[in-house]
Amino acid sequence: MLLHKPDRELQKPLFDFGLPAFFDVLAEPQRVELKNLARQKTYRDGETLHQPTDVADTMGWIESGALLFGKYLQEEGFHTLARLGPGHHFGEFSAFPNRDGGKNLRRLAAVSEGRTIVNEIPADELSGLFARDPEYLRAFHFVTTARLALLLELYDDARRLPARQRIINFLSLVDRLMQEKRLLNCTQSDVSKMLGLSKVTVNQTLKALTERGVISIGYGTIKFQDAERLHAMTDRA
Amino acid sequence: MLLHKPDRELQKPLFDFGLPAFFDVLAEPQRVELKNLARQKTYRDGETLHQPTDVADTMGWIESGALLFGKYLQEEGFHTLARLGPGHHFGEFSAFPNRDGGKNLRRLAAVSEGRTIVNEIPADELSGLFARDPEYLRAFHFVTTARLALLLELYDDARRLPARQRIINFLSLVDRLMQEKRLLNCTQSDVSKMLGLSKVTVNQTLKALTERGVISIGYGTIKFQDAERLHAMTDRA
Repeated sequence: MLLHKPDRELQKPLFDFGLPAFFDVLAEPQRVELKNLARQKTYRDGETLHQPTDVADTMGWIESGALLFGKYLQEEGFHTLARLGPGHHFGEFSAFPNRDGGKNLRRLAAVSEGRTIVNEIPADELSGLFARDPEYLRAFHFVTTARLALLLELYDDARRLPARQRIINFLSLVDRLMQEKRLLNCTQSDVSKMLGLSKVTVNQTLKALTERGVISIGYGTIKFQDAERLHAMTDRA
Repeated sequence: MLLHKPDRELQKPLFDFGLPAFFDVLAEPQRVELKNLARQKTYRDGETLHQPTDVADTMGWIESGALLFGKYLQEEGFHTLARLGPGHHFGEFSAFPNRDGGKNLRRLAAVSEGRTIVNEIPADELSGLFARDPEYLRAFHFVTTARLALLLELYDDARRLPARQRIINFLSLVDRLMQEKRLLNCTQSDVSKMLGLSKVTVNQTLKALTERGVISIGYGTIKFQDAERLHAMTDRA
């Protein structure tokens, strides 16, 4: 299964910036139910869990480590679209009836990043459960809606704003998502990958924000020092 | 309620490109149930249905016409993030319990585009229904997941690809979404707004694709003539 290493340098993490994870959002009784059904599997760094168009016959959520979801490009091979950390789910659609009566297929490839433990449940053990108890779907819908809301703003910013304003908007968005938490575990390089901007541009903007006392930068962290001021610097009314 | 006209020139339609709508995805018995609960309201062009941070106390779906969802920017005022047409829903979260025990608030403003008929149901009439019968949540989750998948690809393309390749990738994505249907009701201007690219760039690329026999352009339509070739021109493997 160790087919290739993911594109470390090009990888662009998503959804790990304060967004709620399925397993954290799910109510306690349903968590217990899923834990009882799940088998834990451990993947080494760089293992491929599945490929696009594989039949989707399990859903899973990440216990520890991370999974990279991506597709294959003509030039660079595997290309990461999103990175999911602990509590985040994937493949839940495998347990829903397919409209055409056929099998549900994976849309993206999944590759482990570092040693990763995944809880997996066969789809046929879940379909009855999901059809009887709306709590599972409520939790899926809740986290998917949060991802969509974030991505809608990121996309809209990407297509209309200059780099500096995109960085400020992004930081303010993340700050709002994290609520009371003020420390973001994230390097300058992560921001540059996430937004598809050069490291130089990101470094310059973060440095200017630091000098104004809006954020402070630690080792692998960004701390929000003045969220009010940060928001005032966005282009939002 | 006629507060302002939306930014027609800057409006960037989203989600009307072959993506499934909630009311079309929902099973027949549940459609009947919702229709029985709904009151129809007609909005004139440019009416504001709600503002951000208004209490969200109804969900709705569009019967005819369209709604623009957006936020307010310091410079331009109302700014459209997404445009939803017939069958698409909004505000379903109003019927779910809020985690903090408070009221659910609107995140975006909604403004009618042209004469628009909306089916509206008070949230408190829905919360019981949604908590008992998973079919509603299945349909919400299905359409939200489809939107997220489209947006993830659009965003990833926007942050890493040149304009011409983004246009080709976008057309190929839309072609796959529409399945057997080969005619897209969409102007060159729509494509330019959707991708945030200049009309000149879009026109040049569409013209080149037309000369190669990949698409043909009609009055307000783009027809896919050679989907195989179009896909081969994307950067996807």
